[in-house]
Formats: sequence, structure tokens, C-alpha cells
Amino acid sequence: MYKLVLIRHGESLWNKAKNFSGWSDVDLTEKGKEEAILAGKILLQEGFLFDIAFTSVLKRAIRTLWLVLDELNSCWIPVERTWHLNERHYGALQGLNKIEMSYLCGEKRVKDWRRKYDEIPPPLNKFDERHPRMKQCYHNLSEDLIPSTESLKNVITRVTPYWKNIIIPKIRSGKNVLIVAHHNSLKAIVKDLDNISDKDIPSYEMPTGIPLIYLIDQNMKAIRHYYLGDPKMIKRAIEDEIHLGELSWEKDFKSYLTKS
Amino acid sequence: MYKLVLIRHGESLWNKAKNFSGWSDVDLTEKGKEEAILAGKILLQEGFLFDIAFTSVLKRAIRTLWLVLDELNSCWIPVERTWHLNERHYGALQGLNKIEMSYLCGEKRVKDWRRKYDEIPPPLNKFDERHPRMKQCYHNLSEDLIPSTESLKNVITRVTPYWKNIIIPKIRSGKNVLIVAHHNSLKAIVKDLDNISDKDIPSYEMPTGIPLIYLIDQNMKAIRHYYLGDPKMIKRAIEDEIHLGELSWEKDFKSYLTKS
Repeated sequence: MYKLVLIRHGESLWNKAKNFSGWSDVDLTEKGKEEAILAGKILLQEGFLFDIAFTSVLKRAIRTLWLVLDELNSCWIPVERTWHLNERHYGALQGLNKIEMSYLCGEKRVKDWRRKYDEIPPPLNKFDERHPRMKQCYHNLSEDLIPSTESLKNVITRVTPYWKNIIIPKIRSGKNVLIVAHHNSLKAIVKDLDNISDKDIPSYEMPTGIPLIYLIDQNMKAIRHYYLGDPKMIKRAIEDEIHLGELSWEKDFKSYLTKS
Repeated sequence: MYKLVLIRHGESLWNKAKNFSGWSDVDLTEKGKEEAILAGKILLQEGFLFDIAFTSVLKRAIRTLWLVLDELNSCWIPVERTWHLNERHYGALQGLNKIEMSYLCGEKRVKDWRRKYDEIPPPLNKFDERHPRMKQCYHNLSEDLIPSTESLKNVITRVTPYWKNIIIPKIRSGKNVLIVAHHNSLKAIVKDLDNISDKDIPSYEMPTGIPLIYLIDQNMKAIRHYYLGDPKMIKRAIEDEIHLGELSWEKDFKSYLTKS
């Protein structure tokens, strides 16, 4: 039996602002940092030690990992950063506010963008300075690999080979693996582990900054999984995520306007 | 012509306390963190960008690197952590105070331990819990590779193959390389780049947390090198290092006793 730990990065500035983030390289909020530190403390307390960590090339995931490793006194373990584990690319929606967009484009439109398996948001213009091809980070990638937008299905297509060819062999070789990544890239992994259907995976919710422990069999399928930490806090965090997915954004727009 | 940047980690708690550190995993002081942040700011200001970074498995070097990368907005670059770049293993001296040891063993003894090329300090007992073989970090190394003590000569013997076989090919391939490591592991690199003799390398001083830029020719030899930053601050930092190397530790012991 193998063990794997997944952590979705702590709350980011744009999680808080309810903006589409995607490949925009936004940092953690103070709350997000605290979530990461707490995750590290709980893992330490429960005796978790890691041999290798995988993360994306986005700083909200990397910083979460750094804070976790620091608490575990494991700054020395090898860390593989890869664009394969990046968040879903949200195309031209990146940086836009989910509530505003619900008001402007209608709630159904936004819900489809966010929660339909093969829905592709409008692409980011290739000459937009926010396009990944403009960034040093992605200069080594061939242009056809760099997305201008992605559906959840696209994300799963890019994460799965990395998961199967790079991460799984490490788990099989007996390494204790930690993955700190994003809501949608982690969906690709839990979809495979738990055989979640294309229909169900879009609505799969995962709270930020809480270690998710997977026990895995020889066929690399989940035996069971559980979150680590205070059960009440975990329950509330998952409910908050579900609630967020179901929010009536149009109704929220009025209160949003009043606040801003 | 190639460019390489070396940074000795910022001031550590045991630099400040004047203890022998070696492979003891002591953290940075607040001043050490500030040095690292400033190094990052200066590199950013001067337009330096890196493709890959190398560091040791000791947290004072890793944290220095993290703070530098953060300032450069380059958390995403690949980082290779290796024990080959660790500080010199100071054997049973680790954790002991240099001033106290000068008083107890005589100034010449301590000076020889610190500044003679092939002087080997008394080894750390293999069953001492501080011995690297007791630490998860070194569990993958075969026992004959794990030192119980090291001379500067031993350090150069362990750093040089890594430098020549792993780091130099990256530089040759056109990668912008950053190395954040330790006084003695960096001595191995500058010794090779500048053809410094066995006689002269022990007294080579390098201030903490100041980027040292090397311009390198096709034969991987230094054309020239310079520190980056405010010239007055750099001059003072180098003088402080030289002064520290020449300190009359026995005389200092009285003031040390009074303080502690």
C-alpha cells in the first residue's frame, strides 16, 4: 500500500477577490500563508516525512510548498516544478471578476465556463503581454504546448501523462510523495485515483491548504482518502467550497458593487 | 563569454554566535534574511535572470536562495539541492564556539583547523545523533561518502566533480546559473575558476549575502569577477571577513566571558 499527499495551495489574492486566476502568477494572502503553515504543522504532528515534492511553476503553489517544507524541517528534499501541474488556463477570463462576469454575461455562462468538463473559455490573445508565451518561465516550451485557454478536459490531458510517467513511478519506487498544486490540476489526479467520471469531476470540490491523504493500492487506485486536521474545520472548508460553487453570482453583484 | 553568479548564504545564527557550523542545519538571522533580500533586489535592478539554481541541502543556503528568487520573481526556476555543495564538515567542532576553543586549545590550533588546507578537525562520533548518517537527508548516500569531518582539501575533492560534471555543462549550454552555497564549498569553485593555489585558498575571504559575478571564458576560466552592490558596503564586508580571520580569539575571550 502506498501513501500520497495532495495539497491545494493556500488562499490566493484572487481566490479572495473572486477573480479568475488560471496561469496569472498571483501570490498567497496572509490567510493563505497561515493555511500552508498549519498544513505543515499538522503533517509534522502526524509524522509525515517526504522524499520528493512536485509543484507547479506558479508562486501560490510554490510558496505553499515552501511554507509546508519549512514546518516539516524538510527544505532539503528535491522539488520538481512543472507547468504540467499549473492551474487550468482560463484564457481571456484571467483577472476578471467572477461576480462581475456573472452580471455581464449571465450566471449560466460563468457556471458553464467554470463547471462544464469540455467548456473552453475565450482564448487570451497571443500578443497580450499576459500570454504565457511572453514569459521567461515558458520560453523553453514549444509554442504548440503553450495554451491560450483550457477546458478542464484539456487540463486532464496535460496533467495525466506527467502523473503517470513521472509521479507514479516515484510512488511505486517507495518514495513518499507530496504534491502541492491547484484545484484543476489536482482534479486530474483524484479523477484517476478514484475513477471519477467526466460528468462528476467538474463539481469535485477541494478546500485550500488542507492535506489530502490518499492510500493507494498496487494498481495505483485509491483504497481510501481523508483530509488531515480538525474535522470541524475541514467540514466547514469543504462546505464553503461547495457553497462557492453554487453561489448565485448575479444576486451577489449588488453587494459587490456596494463594497467596491 | 559566460556569466556565473555565486552567493554565500546570509549571516546564520552560528556565524553571529561565532560557532563552528559545518553540516549543522542552523537557520539565518534576521540580518541574514535582509542580506538575501538585498542581494535579490540588486540582481533584479541589474537585470539578472536565471535559468537554474544550485544550492546545498542546508537551510541557511536554501532560505537565502528562496529569498533571492522571490525578489527576482523567479520562484519557478529549477533548483538543484545537493550535499556536494554543503559547507565543510567541521567534525566534533560543530556547535562549539571559536572563541572558547581558542581559549581552551590555543589560538594556533583553532587557526590551523580553520585555515590550513589539509587540516582535519577531530571527527564526529558515528553514533552521535548530530552525525549526518542519523539524518533522513543523507539516508540515500552510501556510508563511505558521508563525512565525519573534513579538511578544506576534502571539500574541494567532493565539490569539484559536481562543479565540473553537473554545473559546468549547464553554463556551457548557455544557461544562466546561480549558485547559493557556503564559504568553503564556494572556495572550491573560485579556486578552479581563478587557478588559486592550495596555499592561498584557505585565506580566501567572501562576505555573506553579496552576489559575486564571474565572467568566464571558453576554457571555463575566469576573465574577471566583481561583487554586485554598493562599493563601500562591499569593501567593509570584505574587510570584516578578513578581520574575523585574523582575530586574536584569546584576547576576545575575556570580553566574550563578560558578555555571556
